[in-house]
Amino acid sequence: MSDRYVLVLAGGRGERFWPWSRPERPKQLLPLAPGGRSLLAATLDRATRVVSADRVLVLTARDLVPAVRRECGPQVEVIGEPVGRNTAAAIGAAAARFLERSSRAVLAVMPSDHLIEDTAAFAADLEHAFTAAERERVLLTFGIRPSHPETNFGYVRRGARIHDRLHRVAQFTEKPDMERARAWVASGEYWWNSGIFVWGAATFLDALEASRPALAAPLRALTGAGARFGDRLDQVFPALESVSVDYAVLEHAPNVLVLEAGFDWDDLGSWSAWARRQPHDPRGNVCFGDALVVDCDGCVVVGDGGTAAAVALRDTVVVHANGATLSCPLDRADQVRRVSEALKTRGRP
Amino acid sequence: MSDRYVLVLAGGRGERFWPWSRPERPKQLLPLAPGGRSLLAATLDRATRVVSADRVLVLTARDLVPAVRRECGPQVEVIGEPVGRNTAAAIGAAAARFLERSSRAVLAVMPSDHLIEDTAAFAADLEHAFTAAERERVLLTFGIRPSHPETNFGYVRRGARIHDRLHRVAQFTEKPDMERARAWVASGEYWWNSGIFVWGAATFLDALEASRPALAAPLRALTGAGARFGDRLDQVFPALESVSVDYAVLEHAPNVLVLEAGFDWDDLGSWSAWARRQPHDPRGNVCFGDALVVDCDGCVVVGDGGTAAAVALRDTVVVHANGATLSCPLDRADQVRRVSEALKTRGRP
Repeated sequence: MSDRYVLVLAGGRGERFWPWSRPERPKQLLPLAPGGRSLLAATLDRATRVVSADRVLVLTARDLVPAVRRECGPQVEVIGEPVGRNTAAAIGAAAARFLERSSRAVLAVMPSDHLIEDTAAFAADLEHAFTAAERERVLLTFGIRPSHPETNFGYVRRGARIHDRLHRVAQFTEKPDMERARAWVASGEYWWNSGIFVWGAATFLDALEASRPALAAPLRALTGAGARFGDRLDQVFPALESVSVDYAVLEHAPNVLVLEAGFDWDDLGSWSAWARRQPHDPRGNVCFGDALVVDCDGCVVVGDGGTAAAVALRDTVVVHANGATLSCPLDRADQVRRVSEALKTRGRP
Repeated sequence: MSDRYVLVLAGGRGERFWPWSRPERPKQLLPLAPGGRSLLAATLDRATRVVSADRVLVLTARDLVPAVRRECGPQVEVIGEPVGRNTAAAIGAAAARFLERSSRAVLAVMPSDHLIEDTAAFAADLEHAFTAAERERVLLTFGIRPSHPETNFGYVRRGARIHDRLHRVAQFTEKPDMERARAWVASGEYWWNSGIFVWGAATFLDALEASRPALAAPLRALTGAGARFGDRLDQVFPALESVSVDYAVLEHAPNVLVLEAGFDWDDLGSWSAWARRQPHDPRGNVCFGDALVVDCDGCVVVGDGGTAAAVALRDTVVVHANGATLSCPLDRADQVRRVSEALKTRGRP
């Protein structure tokens, strides 16, 4: 147990929950988890079931550090990246950090904005994954058995079974179109790529070096920075390539395994996904916070810091939050980023 | 000219524009008139075209006095009613007030929340009406030639023509159902009752005395209160019957005339009515203030004190104002009062 660590990735700025989410309060900080907790707090709760709090590192954006710290216990280390450089750089930096504490460090990587409710099954699977990563130099990712064709996720095609729910990976794939997503789900050979990973810190840096040596070298050199780790990130990060770990490492490495998750998983990637898990009134409406519906069906109404009222609408989201309002049909909510873009063009956040 | 006065009625608390309108900032104070002026300011502008500002009295609710004063020039008298007692009491009090200044006082009564754009035609019609009311002891109301069957207005059936656009009134009617409204409009004999009146102050109090003596007596006694008029209102108003002038006087009096308006008129009784007069984008959307539409058609989006964004909606109103949000199909906006009721039940304004 003593060489196990957790990296929580909390730098996302997703705009799908605008105006509830804002750059200064992104999705992982919204009260989207059961009991009105933030997804980040729920993630930390899962993390500290598998390692002690002083073995958890949270990487986020520099300006989010104060807000992120408020969600963490005092023992959790929170470090702000000076600029976002995607997951390969973040995981490499954390691997270097953990190698300071143990040359045999093994880490679990957890996105902070997903919902997992069965924490016991999650902890059991992590135990399984840590054990595998301690036994062999493998890169292990969690695959989610798809419940429906989904075009917003990457997929993993599984290869030969090793044992039980653990397989070799035959192929990583980018987000498919709907036709392919349907075929993949029907085949039974594809799982969603959850973004939850377990591997040895040294194993990861070696794999990164094999595929992206220019990225691996400065990250590896972070080992030994000690209390100056944050300063060193400031110096190193701006020049790093911004690339996802899937693209930089997993699609190339020969030693990738996929463990089918025994836990529930939802990326809460839309208002609908979140609303499905909230209490509904008899006409299928979800009211959260200071919200009111009159003669509505299937609506999602959120009032945070003010009253949101929906009247005579169907399958529509109405949000009042952070001094702004959005109204949009639920099945068109992916268009909301166009609002953010328009507001940016106007020079407003 | 020296005996002519104007009473502007500015005590309304209509809830149709919630949450833009609030009890403390009702419709007449919203920037609904051309150029973003308030309807009250536009009404005062029309009033001071027919009488000097020191002959204009604005009656409103006590708590609205400061906000109403800000819309008025320094010469206009603004008096706050301690409690609302509908139009018969308000007009009776004003008649008593004007009688202090002239026993032959004639007054025009103007609601403050209607839109009239042709101010020249309005002034000409007022001249016509004042002259008629100075010549004879008549109660004169303005009728609006209906553009469509409307169930939210009272109607006036005209009787014998006196001359030009001036008729006797055959009948006042309450708001009709749609079937009757259609028949009345088709008949060509009915006009909308505009709520704009002209009559002698003494003529009015006499007519009120004939039909509502218990209401007329205390109002008549207000004449002579001078600087203590406001105090006397406080003493008298709470005990008065709350009744409309139509119901208390016009439906009973024998000497009522109707002058067909030669000016445009709109009561702006709905979001649609207001939006029709605003600039539209190529897809028929109206954006007012801090408002944004993405892939919408025929929507009305208002952002006052925050951004209102509508995405992929059709014929829907989206309002962000006064720390609250409303979203509602335009043709269901009459349901919005149910939101106000629900909020009152919750103990919020």
